[in-house]
Amino acid sequence: MTVTYQAICQAHERIKPFIHRTPILTSRIINELVGAELYFKCENFQKGGAFKARGAFNAVHSLPETQLSKGVVTHSSGNHAAALALACASRQAKATVVMPSNSPTPKKLAVAGYGATIVECEPTLAAREAAADKILADTLGTFLHPYDNDQIIAGQGTAAKEMIEDGPAFDIVMCPVGGGGLLAGTAISVKELLPNAKVIAAEPLGADDAKRSFDAGHIIPQVQANTIADGLLTSVGERNFVIMQDKVDEILTATEQNIVRAMRLIWQHMKIVIEPSSAVPLACLLEHQRDLSGKRIGIILTGGNVDIDKLPW
Amino acid sequence: MTVTYQAICQAHERIKPFIHRTPILTSRIINELVGAELYFKCENFQKGGAFKARGAFNAVHSLPETQLSKGVVTHSSGNHAAALALACASRQAKATVVMPSNSPTPKKLAVAGYGATIVECEPTLAAREAAADKILADTLGTFLHPYDNDQIIAGQGTAAKEMIEDGPAFDIVMCPVGGGGLLAGTAISVKELLPNAKVIAAEPLGADDAKRSFDAGHIIPQVQANTIADGLLTSVGERNFVIMQDKVDEILTATEQNIVRAMRLIWQHMKIVIEPSSAVPLACLLEHQRDLSGKRIGIILTGGNVDIDKLPW
Repeated sequence: MTVTYQAICQAHERIKPFIHRTPILTSRIINELVGAELYFKCENFQKGGAFKARGAFNAVHSLPETQLSKGVVTHSSGNHAAALALACASRQAKATVVMPSNSPTPKKLAVAGYGATIVECEPTLAAREAAADKILADTLGTFLHPYDNDQIIAGQGTAAKEMIEDGPAFDIVMCPVGGGGLLAGTAISVKELLPNAKVIAAEPLGADDAKRSFDAGHIIPQVQANTIADGLLTSVGERNFVIMQDKVDEILTATEQNIVRAMRLIWQHMKIVIEPSSAVPLACLLEHQRDLSGKRIGIILTGGNVDIDKLPW
Repeated sequence: MTVTYQAICQAHERIKPFIHRTPILTSRIINELVGAELYFKCENFQKGGAFKARGAFNAVHSLPETQLSKGVVTHSSGNHAAALALACASRQAKATVVMPSNSPTPKKLAVAGYGATIVECEPTLAAREAAADKILADTLGTFLHPYDNDQIIAGQGTAAKEMIEDGPAFDIVMCPVGGGGLLAGTAISVKELLPNAKVIAAEPLGADDAKRSFDAGHIIPQVQANTIADGLLTSVGERNFVIMQDKVDEILTATEQNIVRAMRLIWQHMKIVIEPSSAVPLACLLEHQRDLSGKRIGIILTGGNVDIDKLPW
C-alpha cells in the first residue's frame, strides 16, 4: 500500500480550513538567468512559515479524539515541529517535539510560541529517535514521523496539487528533498495531474543521500550532512523512497555556493524571505546548465524560517 | 484643478497591461501586536520593486509620440527613476535620471539595468533640480516630476484603488509620505470609495516636513533630512500639499528605532523583503499606541529595493 492521489484530495479537503492557499510568484530577471519560465509556489507564506503545516494538519486532524488526548510526539529540525505544534493547538492537544540542539533559534522560538514542549537532543537521527522513544514510553502518545508517514505525505502532496491547479501546464516540477515527504507527495500529484511532466528533486551536495540512494536502488543513510540547508539534513524515509523510485525522474545536487547564490537571487529579485532549503531547486538549475527554453517549471519554495540576523552573505 | 478619481480610473485602464495587481498579505502575529486587523498591499512585488511604476507608466503612456521622441528626464532617489526607465523602455523612449550620489547601490543598478542614463548629483533638492534643468535645456526633453505631477498622482492612486477593491471595507488607510505622490493619489481613491475611512499618512521623524507643513497650513521645506527611509527624504510637493490639506485626516511620525523594528517584524513574520520606507506606517502604529480593536487598516508597502548586504540590524 502506498499513498494515492485520492488520499491527497481527501487531505486537501481536511486541511483547507486551516492552511493558506499560497500564491505563485515569478521573476523576469531569474527567468532570463535560467532561460526558462519559472513559477515559484510560496510556501514560505504558509502557516508556520513552511509547507509542513499541510502534512501536520492532515495527520493531527485524522487522529481520533481518544488517541489525541494522550498527546503527539515528533522529532524535527524545526519546520515540522512548528507545524505540528500549530496543528495540535487547533485541536487543544499536547505536542512534544524533539529538536536537535543546532536548530536555528527562530525555529525553536516559533515551536515554543505555538505552545509545544521542546526536548533538545544531539543533532543526529539516532539521538532524535531515542529521545522520542523515551517520551512515547512515558506518555503513550502518538508518534508522528516528520516524513515517513502516509498522512504526512498526503498532506504535503497538496502543495503541488494547488500549484498545478493555479499555474500553467508545467513541463517540470521541482522541490527539494530531505526526508522525502514533500517529494513523495509532489510526485504523486504531478504524475496524476500532469502525466507528461517530469519530477526533478533538488538536494544539497553536502547531504546527497537521496541522490546516492536513488542511483543505487536502495537507501544509503546520510552520515555527516554538511549544508546550510538545515531542513534537508535527514535521510530519506522508507515509504518516501518507494514512491521516489516509482515516480521521480531525476535528482540533481547543488553546491553550497550555488545554494547561497540562489537564495540571494530570490531575496533580491522576488522580494521574499526564504530559508536556504527553499533555494536548492533554483541552485540546481544554476549549477546544471541545460537547454530549458520554452519550458515551464513549477518550483515549491518550502519555507521562510531563517534567522535574519545570520544571513550567509 | 486637481486630480479626480476619474483620472485615477483612466490611469488604471492605461497602466493595467504593464503593472502587477499586487497581492494583499496579512500576519496574525503583527495583528496581535498592534491590536487591529492589518492588510498589507505588497507594492514591493510591483514591477521595478515599488509602487512608482504606476505613476511612471501612466505619465509616459500619456505622452504623444512626438514629445516622447525627445526623451524624458527626472530626478529621484531611486524608485521613481527605475520606474521611469521601465516605462520609457516599454515605449522605446530615452530616459535620463538625476540621482543623488547617496542612492542605494541596488537602486542605481536597477535604473541602469532598465536602460536609463544616470547623472549623479549632490543629495539635495536644489542640486537635483539644477542637474535636471541642464539636461532639459540640452535635449528639449520632457520633465516628469517624481510626485508634483497630476498624472503621476493619478497613477499612484491606483494602488489604493486596487487595495480597496480586493480587501475588506477599511476603517483606516495608511501610506508613507515623502513628496506626497502616493499619499495624494491614495487620499483621492479612499475618499471616493470609502468616504468614512480615515487617511493617515506616516512619516519618519527625521524627515517630518509633511507633518510640520500640514500642522502649519503651508509648505515648510525639509532641511537636513536624516532617516534610514531613503524614499522619504524629499519635501512635499505643491499639488500634493493641496490634496493633502483637503483629504488627509492625520499625519503620524515614527522614530528610526521603530522604523527598523517595524521593518524587521515584516521581514520576520510576513517573509517579505521591504525597504525601510515601507515600514513607516507600521512603525507609526507601534509608536502611537491607541485603541484600534476591531479596526481594519489597509497599509501600502511601498517598495522592496533594499541593499540586502547592508541591513540595519
